[in-house]
Amino acid sequence: MASSPRVRLDPATRREQLLSLGVRLLATRPLEQLSIETLAEAAGISRGLLYHYFGSKVQFHEAVVRRAADELIEATSPPPGEDQLARLAYSMAAYLDYVVENHEGYLSLVKGAASGNESLRAIYQESRAVLTDRLFTEDPDGLMLPDTPQTRLVVHAWAAMVEGLVLQWAERPAGVSRDEVLAILNGSLPALIELAR
Amino acid sequence: MASSPRVRLDPATRREQLLSLGVRLLATRPLEQLSIETLAEAAGISRGLLYHYFGSKVQFHEAVVRRAADELIEATSPPPGEDQLARLAYSMAAYLDYVVENHEGYLSLVKGAASGNESLRAIYQESRAVLTDRLFTEDPDGLMLPDTPQTRLVVHAWAAMVEGLVLQWAERPAGVSRDEVLAILNGSLPALIELAR
Repeated sequence: MASSPRVRLDPATRREQLLSLGVRLLATRPLEQLSIETLAEAAGISRGLLYHYFGSKVQFHEAVVRRAADELIEATSPPPGEDQLARLAYSMAAYLDYVVENHEGYLSLVKGAASGNESLRAIYQESRAVLTDRLFTEDPDGLMLPDTPQTRLVVHAWAAMVEGLVLQWAERPAGVSRDEVLAILNGSLPALIELAR
Repeated sequence: MASSPRVRLDPATRREQLLSLGVRLLATRPLEQLSIETLAEAAGISRGLLYHYFGSKVQFHEAVVRRAADELIEATSPPPGEDQLARLAYSMAAYLDYVVENHEGYLSLVKGAASGNESLRAIYQESRAVLTDRLFTEDPDGLMLPDTPQTRLVVHAWAAMVEGLVLQWAERPAGVSRDEVLAILNGSLPALIELAR
């Protein structure tokens, strides 16, 4: 009965824990510096056991990035029942805080996707699609976002703007407050949609 | 007196011609497919002579991309004397047409810069800085763009939006007209600046 808690975990639970640890480590370093060695040391287990759980370094990286993207999607998911602008404000605040807290890892995903790494690109595009499709599917009244080629194009471009703004501010926040950033993020979508009507 | 015109060109002029040809070839193919062989064949000269002009494939690529960026800067430079919104409209139309006409090459620059290729990144950032600084320096009345940390951040993000929108539309224009794209591009900067005041 004196076995350590670690030993009693089933493999799936253990893998989940390792993924969460990987995501936390990724917050403060680029993906290419998240080695199996780093995670093994942080988790206090052997490199061999990590390869057992993840197969290869590439698969480990993919799994961590996918988990990080899932966490972003969940964190930015607004509570039901609010109107669309309130949901947008919730998502924007959560997105901003996520990127600030996970700056290095998020930047790795963006760079990796842009550089043509196919699996990172797929994860990036899937999660962006979830984040932007949400804007179209969760407005039963259709007040803000009619689903047209024009608004789809604008939302695509707006997402690039949001990402660029938040990454830039996370890197150089001097002179601009969080509230000012949020005012721009929240106001920009309605303003751009108005231009595309 | 019967020597071919090619022979009479001095080396600097010849190099200029080869660079222009490289830029034209880059319009319709990604940078990694713009080989010394491709250019040598298109120019009707030997690979050896191209190496003589450019030193290496990497230097050749850099020179072509830098030339393409210079052409973009020149093409989008508005005539003097107009008001700021007219200059903005001129630049946006020129930028849109440039990206549509040079889609593959422009995409290569964006991807190369994002992937961390240092020389492409430098060229990309320099040209983006020229394009956006223009917005701050050419408005003697300061009507639209007060130079504050807020507007700098917005212009940075707006540039990402413009690029995302134009690249997306160049790839999938269906359902959205050039005029509709331009209305969004031209209206978005004043609308975003308003949010940042």
